[in-house]
Amino acid sequence: MSEPIKLIAFCGSLRKASFNRMALNLFIEHVPAGVTVETIEIGDWPHYDADLQAKGFPDKVHAAQKAMLAADGIVFATPEYNYSVPGVLKNAIDWLSRTTPQPFAAKPVAMFGAAGGPLGTARAQYHLRQMMVFLDGRPVNKPEVMIGQAHTKFVDGKFNDEVGLKLLTDLGASLALAVRQARAAAQVK
Amino acid sequence: MSEPIKLIAFCGSLRKASFNRMALNLFIEHVPAGVTVETIEIGDWPHYDADLQAKGFPDKVHAAQKAMLAADGIVFATPEYNYSVPGVLKNAIDWLSRTTPQPFAAKPVAMFGAAGGPLGTARAQYHLRQMMVFLDGRPVNKPEVMIGQAHTKFVDGKFNDEVGLKLLTDLGASLALAVRQARAAAQVK
Amino acid sequence: MSEPIKLIAFCGSLRKASFNRMALNLFIEHVPAGVTVETIEIGDWPHYDADLQAKGFPDKVHAAQKAMLAADGIVFATPEYNYSVPGVLKNAIDWLSRTTPQPFAAKPVAMFGAAGGPLGTARAQYHLRQMMVFLDGRPVNKPEVMIGQAHTKFVDGKFNDEVGLKLLTDLGASLALAVRQARAAAQVK
Amino acid sequence: MSEPIKLIAFCGSLRKASFNRMALNLFIEHVPAGVTVETIEIGDWPHYDADLQAKGFPDKVHAAQKAMLAADGIVFATPEYNYSVPGVLKNAIDWLSRTTPQPFAAKPVAMFGAAGGPLGTARAQYHLRQMMVFLDGRPVNKPEVMIGQAHTKFVDGKFNDEVGLKLLTDLGASLALAVRQARAAAQVK
Repeated sequence: MSEPIKLIAFCGSLRKASFNRMALNLFIEHVPAGVTVETIEIGDWPHYDADLQAKGFPDKVHAAQKAMLAADGIVFATPEYNYSVPGVLKNAIDWLSRTTPQPFAAKPVAMFGAAGGPLGTARAQYHLRQMMVFLDGRPVNKPEVMIGQAHTKFVDGKFNDEVGLKLLTDLGASLALAVRQARAAAQVK
Repeated sequence: MSEPIKLIAFCGSLRKASFNRMALNLFIEHVPAGVTVETIEIGDWPHYDADLQAKGFPDKVHAAQKAMLAADGIVFATPEYNYSVPGVLKNAIDWLSRTTPQPFAAKPVAMFGAAGGPLGTARAQYHLRQMMVFLDGRPVNKPEVMIGQAHTKFVDGKFNDEVGLKLLTDLGASLALAVRQARAAAQVK
Repeated sequence: MSEPIKLIAFCGSLRKASFNRMALNLFIEHVPAGVTVETIEIGDWPHYDADLQAKGFPDKVHAAQKAMLAADGIVFATPEYNYSVPGVLKNAIDWLSRTTPQPFAAKPVAMFGAAGGPLGTARAQYHLRQMMVFLDGRPVNKPEVMIGQAHTKFVDGKFNDEVGLKLLTDLGASLALAVRQARAAAQVK
Repeated sequence: MSEPIKLIAFCGSLRKASFNRMALNLFIEHVPAGVTVETIEIGDWPHYDADLQAKGFPDKVHAAQKAMLAADGIVFATPEYNYSVPGVLKNAIDWLSRTTPQPFAAKPVAMFGAAGGPLGTARAQYHLRQMMVFLDGRPVNKPEVMIGQAHTKFVDGKFNDEVGLKLLTDLGASLALAVRQARAAAQVK
């Protein structure tokens, strides 16, 4: 019987009917037993500004940092805008990266995304992986979940892509395993 | 005697004493004769949200688009946050990319940045270049201006890096030439 | 009546039945009138080694450089290996980059590729675009031609993908236009 | 007392007086007690060609695969050519990636490089990290070792950069720790 696993999720899209939000909901529905996911909303955080930071971090940033530090892993569900991650998601990362302790450090990370074209947010995901190098996040390598032609797969609020659903499910299992492995690894100094 | 050249500039840092803002000011001071630069402030744009867009673009986005469409080239002065461009700058790009006509298309682009480390925003610039592929912006290849160890070069509001100043100056000349070449190229169909 | 256009092409795959070679052949068949394409074979170039270079460039490298300098534009047809360009293609670029004058400089470039997965060599192409920044090549931004699920499209030596064929054709036209525009631009100093 | 650790190293430069080879030698001298490093030479491998593979992998590829499978971690010492990894190193990766079992899978990886400019092979390293996503290699995030202005640091066969030497040493320790953590993690299924 393994310890419970707590994940923190971020969604890079703010629109209500977002495919990525739907994909995140599916991901959450299909995580392994014992795993819980809390989603943090980032749509009303101010733009990062060092002068603002000098006056004190916004409460929402502190709350998110605290939740992340208490969690075991991070989930990103994100669209691709202009061949990279949305500004709003990058802004959340920019704020969180300045908090101490920095809450991405050594945390297993899973990312996925849905997009209209065939690439399914691939370019955004590689940019996000590069950010994680700096932040010492630990993205799982497999599976990579890039849901292309999303408008044909999310129809009337349903997701009709069985392969995609399996990938989302497998990614949840992969992240849960990475968390349990990270716990074992953390015993080794 | 060549036609005047109008450039639109964006700064990726919001802090008042920003090195990148200072570098932008130096860039502007050293553009060739006949070149003018207008800087567009992006710190109070809302986060991009397709639901918000559906109600109409914010006035500031429309104004920026209009200014860009009337201009000949684009300038980015940007820090690197977490190995990529700041969220606030990406957010401005995300808004502008949805306007029609899309205001980056076929425009010559110059980018530069200042950072504390030795890489001088290199990683952010390559991400920005990838964004420009989608937007059909035309970044000049040379010179690449990556001002490392910025805190040792911007001291008491002065920039003591002669090599860096020459690069900023050369980049202005390079962008002006690219604009004039783009005018000639535009005659060829 | 415009001047003839000469292009130099490289293929990143060495296998005889390569999809990318077939795609290159299709590209060549569909270039606009007045455009000719010479393909340079790179499979028997030695690995780049500065000690070898010190003894003199291999004849094949010199011949390729000379052909490129006499040409108007460059074409890359390349598979994606391990999320980047094949070593053999990179090796050719490594040799050519050391020749003087450097033969990519200011040359319009077109790239495309075919792959089994949905991404159609996207990752290799963005790496190749980054190389071109250093070499001052000028990749056309549009169209991006990424032929996914190539094994379902190249069947019995035929290419059954009409959309893909149109993209290859459009890319040839786009590169030819870029060459003619570069000629006009080159008059502006 | 921990189990011995075996590492396999690759050097991306073929020239005899290579700075990267010297850096690799320093890395090897400074690995923690109990760690051994075997360097595999890749300069005389043929260019990857699927037709050649169909006739059987070259002996050297098989030998390298076998050594990697028996090892605990991988080391890359590589220059940056044209803003990416050298073709010769990529070619070795291309061959090895086709062997079964694929020898990068789940292996901790360390990378470093030396270059004349200020970026110290940064661009090559991010490309290499992207390759590792596909191959399921596990690059350590910290420290990133990018030795810039290498020609001023490697003088008369000596390395005069104390900070750089500490980074190389720390990277060896970081990789050794990652290997021991991976052993603990591998117990968790």
